Amino acid sequence: MPKIQAPKGTRDFYPADMAWHRHLLDAWRRVSVRNGFEEVDGPIFETLELYKVKSGEGIVSELFSFRRTGGDTDFAIRPEFTPTLARMVADKANALPKPVKWFATPNFCRAERPQRGRLREFWQWNVDLLGLDTPAADAEVIFTCVDLLAELGMDATQVRVKVSHRDVVKQVLLTLGVPEEKLPGAFVLLDKRDKLTPAEFTKQAGGLGLDEHRVERFEEVCRRKYRSGDLSHLARSLGMTEPPEDLALLDEQLRAFGISDWCEYDLGIVRGLAYYTGTVFEVHEATGVERAVAGGGRYDQLIELFGGPAMPAVGFGMGDVVLTNVLADKGLVPDDVAPRPDAFVFAASDEAAAGLPAVVSQLRRAGLHARMSYKTTRNVGKLLKDATGCGARFAVILGDDVQVKNLETGEQKAVALDGLAGAVTD
Amino acid sequence: MPKIQAPKGTRDFYPADMAWHRHLLDAWRRVSVRNGFEEVDGPIFETLELYKVKSGEGIVSELFSFRRTGGDTDFAIRPEFTPTLARMVADKANALPKPVKWFATPNFCRAERPQRGRLREFWQWNVDLLGLDTPAADAEVIFTCVDLLAELGMDATQVRVKVSHRDVVKQVLLTLGVPEEKLPGAFVLLDKRDKLTPAEFTKQAGGLGLDEHRVERFEEVCRRKYRSGDLSHLARSLGMTEPPEDLALLDEQLRAFGISDWCEYDLGIVRGLAYYTGTVFEVHEATGVERAVAGGGRYDQLIELFGGPAMPAVGFGMGDVVLTNVLADKGLVPDDVAPRPDAFVFAASDEAAAGLPAVVSQLRRAGLHARMSYKTTRNVGKLLKDATGCGARFAVILGDDVQVKNLETGEQKAVALDGLAGAVTD
Repeated sequence: MPKIQAPKGTRDFYPADMAWHRHLLDAWRRVSVRNGFEEVDGPIFETLELYKVKSGEGIVSELFSFRRTGGDTDFAIRPEFTPTLARMVADKANALPKPVKWFATPNFCRAERPQRGRLREFWQWNVDLLGLDTPAADAEVIFTCVDLLAELGMDATQVRVKVSHRDVVKQVLLTLGVPEEKLPGAFVLLDKRDKLTPAEFTKQAGGLGLDEHRVERFEEVCRRKYRSGDLSHLARSLGMTEPPEDLALLDEQLRAFGISDWCEYDLGIVRGLAYYTGTVFEVHEATGVERAVAGGGRYDQLIELFGGPAMPAVGFGMGDVVLTNVLADKGLVPDDVAPRPDAFVFAASDEAAAGLPAVVSQLRRAGLHARMSYKTTRNVGKLLKDATGCGARFAVILGDDVQVKNLETGEQKAVALDGLAGAVTD
Repeated sequence: MPKIQAPKGTRDFYPADMAWHRHLLDAWRRVSVRNGFEEVDGPIFETLELYKVKSGEGIVSELFSFRRTGGDTDFAIRPEFTPTLARMVADKANALPKPVKWFATPNFCRAERPQRGRLREFWQWNVDLLGLDTPAADAEVIFTCVDLLAELGMDATQVRVKVSHRDVVKQVLLTLGVPEEKLPGAFVLLDKRDKLTPAEFTKQAGGLGLDEHRVERFEEVCRRKYRSGDLSHLARSLGMTEPPEDLALLDEQLRAFGISDWCEYDLGIVRGLAYYTGTVFEVHEATGVERAVAGGGRYDQLIELFGGPAMPAVGFGMGDVVLTNVLADKGLVPDDVAPRPDAFVFAASDEAAAGLPAVVSQLRRAGLHARMSYKTTRNVGKLLKDATGCGARFAVILGDDVQVKNLETGEQKAVALDGLAGAVTD
């Protein structure tokens, strides 16, 4: 029979790949929990209708959707978590203690052309804080994101959190002379600015009714970055006497959480034309290679859109594919993240071999990670090499007696069977 | 807008549900790892073709399958892991160190009518050992299953591992006088015996060409259970002088692994008409309520069927739904499995409140699970109740100084800010 392949854009996780994948998922969960978020999850597929609420018909072509034979409902494998989260919050909004601090680490599928940083199946960390509309809530969510980046070994020179605020950008565009009715067009232009040549950008900016001088100012505003803690500089660039209040309050909180060195203001960050209402942010590798590592912001009207009560909300998503690419580029994907055995058990004689199952099961029942040799050889030298090869801390050698060898120090001693578990946890 | 519902037969995991779900997944992984299995995973959907290899066209109606607009390939959300595992092993068979010991804890979808113990989306623990065709390998896999049941608090009086062996059953049927050509019919009858009335069973057994006396013997053989360690009894029932060798060798290994008290021989266990070739087993609640908690066996020809080399294999699957039902029946689903905060931080004055983010972020960066109060009240008594309510071990009270209160002992003391992390890990 010819071998069948995995679907395009999906991954098979063999043990070494899975060890890293599990390491990443565990880090997402550990950081979420210590930041006070509670884990949730939803179904792997939802009604197609659910995904149209936020994204309209346009989303359908990006989904893996299906209908049961004889059924009347279209379903789709989840492409993101936000609609599920909004449905779950809307359904139990009054019963949930506030603020709602939820995280999830689900897999998603999108019918996109597979390319670097973008696969058809991927995992994404979702962190959401609902019920608070304060800059402190925005900053706590951004802190949680930074806490993860630091947990995986990155520092503020390697990644940047690019922060913007939709109301501030709107205010800036109006100040620059973009007429109210051309604001949506200006947002579209901001969102796609990196895909345009400078000439094309200037031309399209001119179409917004800006003269050459104002196009230049517009370009400067959306290309320039301002350090957190230096908002007066941004104010001067914009010809304002005071920094925009929304950014000033957020900046104060980013400093209070101790993460202003990771952050910069970048008014070119728009996060598509999605449902964001205030603060928006993206995490990028510092030199600008790769896609965004994470992205999020405030979405104060979404829970209502899904039939729930008015509830302010802020959150972000971080995918596993780009994150792993960036970490690998920085040498931060170690190859020793697989679980390490406490003991590797083998028999030095055929007579002793019958005792292997009892010894191994005794160790495992004591909670110890115990492997054993399945070979028929009784060559102790070769078997010790196998023990070292699998990374075990101790070798347990069954012969006329039971010997325990510490594979780091080389120390070896005979132990009583009933003291074995203790001897390999020393 | 009217609220949209989750698809029928799927689950929303709110924090309390998810805490149990995570506890279960963690237990599956912990037990797998200590038994020397390595984690793997595959795509959430595969080509429909992959699922037909093992199960034929009959499987299609049980799947959530789909085809992309304009595409020429049918896909299906995975209904089980074995085809993915067989594909992955077949693809890299020669490069994989032997034996291959893999586990996975994926979610699956089946388009079945939701009922007790059976949902449309469920999680299943898969444990497989490939490359060994010994009774010791069968017993190690069964040990791993039992190790999990014990890990979750069950004992041998609450669940039974019902073991059979396809070759032994075949031999018994032949001995009883079932003609070779009627063996498939006899296996079908064994598999559905629990769904038939005794009269209906007797009638159908008669159709196999057995006289009344032999029908009685057949019935006795497939209904009677024999304790592990008492195979001579089984031999006598079958009119044999010696127990069947396949069971005798397996029994020896089950005793070597110390799990014979959990096991019994039940020749009525067939595991459907699937691909099993030798040992088969199912785990059932002892009184017989609920569906099977787990099931598996030896499948020595499957890797070849998927285009790989000949490779013996043994494994099992355990679903989350029936397992949780059985554990709940036994009072073994504790409600305190959510992560417990190390510290709950609050301000006793408005002046001190500005320092909350710095204190909380300091604790979190030190790896501690730190929550904080989002309330504007400064009433220390009420806030201490919140701290106790969330299960925190320590309250951290910001006022003129920083006080740490041990919520178990009631002991309270002032600490320096730079010693705070140490003070809440005491």
